[in-house]
Amino acid sequence: MRSMRILNDEVVKSILDIKSTVECVEKAYSLKAKQQARLFSMISEEIIEGKAEMDIKSGMLDGDNVFGLKLVSWFGDNTKQGLPAITGLTMIFDLVHGFPKGVLNASYMTGMRTGAAGALGIKYLARSNSSVLSVVGTGRMAIFQIAATLSVMPGIKKVHIYDPLNYENAKKFQDGIKKELGKIINDLNDQDNQLWLRRIDEVLFVATDDPQKMLMDSDAVITITPSRTPLLKKAWIKPGTHLSCIGADVAGKQEIDENIFKEAVVCVDDRQQAVTVGETQCAFRANIIESSDLIEIGHLIIGESEGRRSDQDITIFDSTGISLQDLAVSNGLILKAEELNLGELVQI
Amino acid sequence: MRSMRILNDEVVKSILDIKSTVECVEKAYSLKAKQQARLFSMISEEIIEGKAEMDIKSGMLDGDNVFGLKLVSWFGDNTKQGLPAITGLTMIFDLVHGFPKGVLNASYMTGMRTGAAGALGIKYLARSNSSVLSVVGTGRMAIFQIAATLSVMPGIKKVHIYDPLNYENAKKFQDGIKKELGKIINDLNDQDNQLWLRRIDEVLFVATDDPQKMLMDSDAVITITPSRTPLLKKAWIKPGTHLSCIGADVAGKQEIDENIFKEAVVCVDDRQQAVTVGETQCAFRANIIESSDLIEIGHLIIGESEGRRSDQDITIFDSTGISLQDLAVSNGLILKAEELNLGELVQI
Repeated sequence: MRSMRILNDEVVKSILDIKSTVECVEKAYSLKAKQQARLFSMISEEIIEGKAEMDIKSGMLDGDNVFGLKLVSWFGDNTKQGLPAITGLTMIFDLVHGFPKGVLNASYMTGMRTGAAGALGIKYLARSNSSVLSVVGTGRMAIFQIAATLSVMPGIKKVHIYDPLNYENAKKFQDGIKKELGKIINDLNDQDNQLWLRRIDEVLFVATDDPQKMLMDSDAVITITPSRTPLLKKAWIKPGTHLSCIGADVAGKQEIDENIFKEAVVCVDDRQQAVTVGETQCAFRANIIESSDLIEIGHLIIGESEGRRSDQDITIFDSTGISLQDLAVSNGLILKAEELNLGELVQI
Repeated sequence: MRSMRILNDEVVKSILDIKSTVECVEKAYSLKAKQQARLFSMISEEIIEGKAEMDIKSGMLDGDNVFGLKLVSWFGDNTKQGLPAITGLTMIFDLVHGFPKGVLNASYMTGMRTGAAGALGIKYLARSNSSVLSVVGTGRMAIFQIAATLSVMPGIKKVHIYDPLNYENAKKFQDGIKKELGKIINDLNDQDNQLWLRRIDEVLFVATDDPQKMLMDSDAVITITPSRTPLLKKAWIKPGTHLSCIGADVAGKQEIDENIFKEAVVCVDDRQQAVTVGETQCAFRANIIESSDLIEIGHLIIGESEGRRSDQDITIFDSTGISLQDLAVSNGLILKAEELNLGELVQI
């Protein structure tokens, strides 16, 4: 029998830092661009009408010598019982013999790798002198978006918080965000998270109920909501703004006015997913944009495509989330756990 | 944190018996017919050209309150190093909260549940007085086909073994089959496997190099090869014969002459899979059969459809293998392991 490593939620939280998460996701995107990685079809199913969904994202990363999948489910009623709504596991196999390497709790990792995506959109598309971030959405996922962006963009000193449903949510989020960010490890080598706590401390967080005013004072915007109607109007977006649109990941979701796509430079993680389940779907259906107009972010990262050309460009990164993020981060976690002898080795 | 059970190869082999495997697969088929189960799209990918493949079968069994998936890979070169070519894991989640119940080594289980499929085809479609079985194919999977059939059909007293490539393989298989069958547990309640060993002993196994002659003396036939050309001709099939076609499970595979479908009663495990990746694909493409002609075996089991109508009918069961078999057997294994306190409970 062979052994594989089980990494539970506690172990994952203890060794997953933002820095390496962003590095893994960046690498995953670039391997895709270099055709050293492949996505398999996504399976997305409603399993109990209106109450439970699940999806399976699978693929292979030749560059990391692994393949595998992540199954994530959402059971809406769990929260009524104080239970987490989202559950996920990844399974990683080696590409040499096909043997299992590990099974990981994917809940925390999913937040982190999704945060990394939003932040990489900003790193590669926003103006390099960006100092003000706006975040639309105040759910748990928003915390990871902010963490990754602050980690990647040292120039960001102010973060607006906007909740399209309720100003009180934004206020509460503003009051609690420094504490929440402090719980996240930015860099495993940063003793007691000291540098990170200092980084958080230099940022001003401001709740707002006026998205139009907020956008006048924004260099980069992240949308991370389950919205099905556009929350941000085209007229509100000033030249030079970057938007990382993260919330839309199934058919029917939309966070920004599709007309913004008319004049924007549009990057995506995966073309096919973007036009079917991503923010791009509406602009695509309205013939505002064609699939061939879309630049995959991996091509920006490896320098094969150009994104922003001037400080006046409006740029969009539409991330629907791809298996390669999960595979790269999971494999990174397994290697780190091996090094530190963490997790449980089980015979399989 | 929550706990889930890990069942490794050794544990699975120690508690998985043929009897309960057949019961689980029978239940899975009937839940599908009662629409208390759903298959999700199958993912099937070649991951290294000509050398490695992988597929993911997923679905939900409302009747058992579980959902999940099985990932199985084939790495052809492994055997050169004395390593198993097939590796598989199943992940099972509960349908109440979406929490993981268990991760299981699926290698042995896959053989057993595939054997159960072939045997159920015989149980529901072959003449009830069948006494002679013919098996085409002498790989490891053939052993499970024979085991399940002998378990389900007490009237079978003779088994022909035919290897389309090489008579020597059939001879070797014949010489070793009783020992191999003896390693399988038929019924956990059968002390020391005694009744099972006696059952095996009353069967005559005969290697043959003449398929035509073999078919003259066959009541039921199982094909379990990776063939891509028909091995059995229409003219050789005598009236009354049943064929369980198990080998064809990807596009391009075929084991029997598609013209046999012209006059046969055709059952499948899943219509859509059958016409795309099953034995049925050739007959379907040649317009010999329509999707609406196909009877799903679950409907036979629950008595909603009729299969064989006379002793003269030729019947076919085309099984491509569905996730519901894996989910039902895996869930049965988890329940059994809980009862016996076996496997490893890990925090996740």
